[in-house]
Amino acid sequence: MQVIKRKKEINSIVKKLRKDGKKIGLVPTMGFLHEGHISLIEKSKKQCDITVISIFVNPVQFGPDEDFARYPRDFERDRMLAAEKGVDIIFYPEPSEMYAENHLSYVKVEKMEKVMCGKFRPGHFRGVCTVVLKLFNIISPDKAFFGMKDFQQLAILKKMVSDLDIDVQVVECETIREPDGLALSSRNVYLKPEERKNANVLYRAINIAENEIKKGNSITASKNKAVKMLKDCAFVKKIDYFDIRDPEDLKTVKKPDSKKPKILIASAIWFGKTRLIDNKVIEV
Amino acid sequence: MQVIKRKKEINSIVKKLRKDGKKIGLVPTMGFLHEGHISLIEKSKKQCDITVISIFVNPVQFGPDEDFARYPRDFERDRMLAAEKGVDIIFYPEPSEMYAENHLSYVKVEKMEKVMCGKFRPGHFRGVCTVVLKLFNIISPDKAFFGMKDFQQLAILKKMVSDLDIDVQVVECETIREPDGLALSSRNVYLKPEERKNANVLYRAINIAENEIKKGNSITASKNKAVKMLKDCAFVKKIDYFDIRDPEDLKTVKKPDSKKPKILIASAIWFGKTRLIDNKVIEV
Repeated sequence: MQVIKRKKEINSIVKKLRKDGKKIGLVPTMGFLHEGHISLIEKSKKQCDITVISIFVNPVQFGPDEDFARYPRDFERDRMLAAEKGVDIIFYPEPSEMYAENHLSYVKVEKMEKVMCGKFRPGHFRGVCTVVLKLFNIISPDKAFFGMKDFQQLAILKKMVSDLDIDVQVVECETIREPDGLALSSRNVYLKPEERKNANVLYRAINIAENEIKKGNSITASKNKAVKMLKDCAFVKKIDYFDIRDPEDLKTVKKPDSKKPKILIASAIWFGKTRLIDNKVIEV
Repeated sequence: MQVIKRKKEINSIVKKLRKDGKKIGLVPTMGFLHEGHISLIEKSKKQCDITVISIFVNPVQFGPDEDFARYPRDFERDRMLAAEKGVDIIFYPEPSEMYAENHLSYVKVEKMEKVMCGKFRPGHFRGVCTVVLKLFNIISPDKAFFGMKDFQQLAILKKMVSDLDIDVQVVECETIREPDGLALSSRNVYLKPEERKNANVLYRAINIAENEIKKGNSITASKNKAVKMLKDCAFVKKIDYFDIRDPEDLKTVKKPDSKKPKILIASAIWFGKTRLIDNKVIEV
């Protein structure tokens, strides 16, 4: 396994590999790898000849009051895990390698970046789109693997790829969960033991909403029942949103529509000082 | 020479050509070809194995009150000219082929897109960057050729390519001029005969500013002298700007700086109902 820190170097390595007919898979990460990332790596290894993972805590997607500085990092552990899982190349650039001091160019997927998490994290998806486009240009993968846990990110990136004719296939991968249902996230390490015990309330609330909708109850009533469950949990300090939306364009769904049977239930809540997100796409 | 209207089709053609080791040159145009475009085609033919030109009047870069509808078009003439000059492929898509109905993704080069023409044409460079990135992704050229007449466009695209790690070499080409100095532009056909006779005042004003600066006069005094010349011309209805700037980051230059010997003199004026732009990069 190679660890590459320079854009030019990885670019020339993957160019050679592509010339030799190798299919390149990319798993973009911010490091602190967990089973969710591992499942992406395994999928890439099944579908591609060469698996590249990027480890880069992207400053541009963090707001000024967010957790960029304290975001968990442990490169040695990540390196060992990646090697063990058969990753071929880790791309591990410094922020100064990724962004020139006078960086001015950004990609936006308008409208979709303003709702859900975008409403509470202004500029976040602009940062995500920009870094992912850069990684695509540097590594030119055939396929890129993203988890459904960050569903809005996935929907926005799929839209960006389609709108901008980017020649990369986005592969979406199921959310990996703890036995109690909590979605895996690098940020789960922030949770105190008591918080951790109760954190699956988010997944349980989403499941409640799912059941209510499937029983034929209205979107509003279903959502209210789920929100009540969240509010009744003492550890939930704030509900950023609990939304029922179209999983493709992220527009609000007011009523189930038989022509669009798929519905996204997505929520973000504050568990103490930790922001948790989760979602589920259901079929009605 | 092939004329291709579909993204998928040209993408698979150029992919095959690249695999065969051919260097691809792209000349993006809005059609109504003139000697300026021809010089770009000739440069591409010298430097690349295959020359693709795109002909696409990009709706996204026109403001609601601008000349999108009346922008001059003559595909038959363009096709003959291109064939005569040895173009290999014309990419000639419909707007609906380039933009899905629900297109949402855009690229911006912040700050640089707000000054000069960007101040008077809000959204223009967002449209230019977006369509050029799309063309790059569809055609994946090794080199792309742009004229210096649209200097701000060139500076912004170079910045976009560098910031977003786009693997295309931008080749800048000298402005081609009529014998009296008027820069070639598809929009020159809008000029009435009397206007046409006087239209080189823009180039003459830029040359005045150049001479004044080179004589050691201040930027302000040099600019004032040029602006006076423009104001004295009865055909000049409005001066959008007459700016002295750094040709790389487009920041205003207040004083010549020996560490940055290159200076951009650029202007946009209204000649009757026709907007003319021109510029010159000088060395002091």
